[in-house]
Amino acid sequence: MNNLLTNPPYLQLAIDLPDLMQVGKLLAKINSNHSRKLLLEMGTPLIKNEGIKNVVPVIRNRFPEIYLISDLKTLDVGRLEVEFSVKSGVDACVVSGLAPQATIKDFVKACKEFGVDSWVDSLGTNIDNFMNKLKTSGIRPDVVIIHRGIDEELSGVQSPWENIKKLQGYAHLIAVAGGLTLNNVNQALLNGANILIIGRAIYQAENPQDKINEFLAKID
Amino acid sequence: MNNLLTNPPYLQLAIDLPDLMQVGKLLAKINSNHSRKLLLEMGTPLIKNEGIKNVVPVIRNRFPEIYLISDLKTLDVGRLEVEFSVKSGVDACVVSGLAPQATIKDFVKACKEFGVDSWVDSLGTNIDNFMNKLKTSGIRPDVVIIHRGIDEELSGVQSPWENIKKLQGYAHLIAVAGGLTLNNVNQALLNGANILIIGRAIYQAENPQDKINEFLAKID
Repeated sequence: MNNLLTNPPYLQLAIDLPDLMQVGKLLAKINSNHSRKLLLEMGTPLIKNEGIKNVVPVIRNRFPEIYLISDLKTLDVGRLEVEFSVKSGVDACVVSGLAPQATIKDFVKACKEFGVDSWVDSLGTNIDNFMNKLKTSGIRPDVVIIHRGIDEELSGVQSPWENIKKLQGYAHLIAVAGGLTLNNVNQALLNGANILIIGRAIYQAENPQDKINEFLAKID
Repeated sequence: MNNLLTNPPYLQLAIDLPDLMQVGKLLAKINSNHSRKLLLEMGTPLIKNEGIKNVVPVIRNRFPEIYLISDLKTLDVGRLEVEFSVKSGVDACVVSGLAPQATIKDFVKACKEFGVDSWVDSLGTNIDNFMNKLKTSGIRPDVVIIHRGIDEELSGVQSPWENIKKLQGYAHLIAVAGGLTLNNVNQALLNGANILIIGRAIYQAENPQDKINEFLAKID
């Protein structure tokens, strides 16, 4: 752990917009003098469409100090993907929990070596297989994400918050993503979530800063 | 199928270099008047570091007509990732076989809709689970990739070519990736591979075009 996430819970804004122009407009609507409880995530589609190298400078220009997560969802060449993310200036990198064990190991090791936090995303995994994969490989990442995908959410897959308790001890912190709203974040917090990851509920709001404030009120 | 891959087998050059400058140098070493047996793949690290939007124009500048594959390894928001790839001008998009079924379905459907080929990568899957996932969802992609990851290869995982025969009928064409060399491609072809995906063995060669020619001689 990078000693940056020492005061949970946190609110994480996941930017899943694929276009950097749209992202610039969104960032302009958020206070640059932001709460220390707010983390920022470059979503996978944004990374793939625009490139980490090009996205990080735009974010850092407005938020020089914010904790910035690179949601790579890495499946192969773990070390390489950490390396170029770090070079661009992120604080944390996310590997997919679906990746081969060798990849997750290399990824977490590279994060330690480069001094950034290692996150593992459980999206699409069977939670027992996922826990077993972490346990047998001796991997203890800084953060695990309990995650219902957008496609899964839209097709009616239920929220897996009951898994939060199961995963305690497998990582320093537990993050929850997928379908969180002002109405259900308390449930996630009560179940032990340390980081609430919210995307569309914030950036599709008419006033994203107001929405951020409403979510922050839940955790402060 | 887009009617572009009607004369297999093919050789596919996978560009896993993360830096666009290096890629430009590599492309300069390859004949722009290339064989129609040669396909080009934007590797996942390149996509993530530089962005599809920025990589495609560089490739299209030198190879306006080449069959170009976007190796997204998508795990979520299948439709969105196809959409921005197509907008940039690719011929095919790759979803991860590890993705939730809902994502793979959306991805393949979006490819059909946008008129590009749908590829599914089996990297990291249990092959029987993977086949079952395709079968039960009624998904028949244009191409499936039998793939040993670089991290897996380096940690000693054996080549899964014996799976080529198993997967016949699950897609129009079967591609094989991971550790292919001049010494073992015949084995892959004999087992029924339609597309040979080669990365480092070509782009780390002193003369990449010579190496391409040597591989092409195996399939012509």
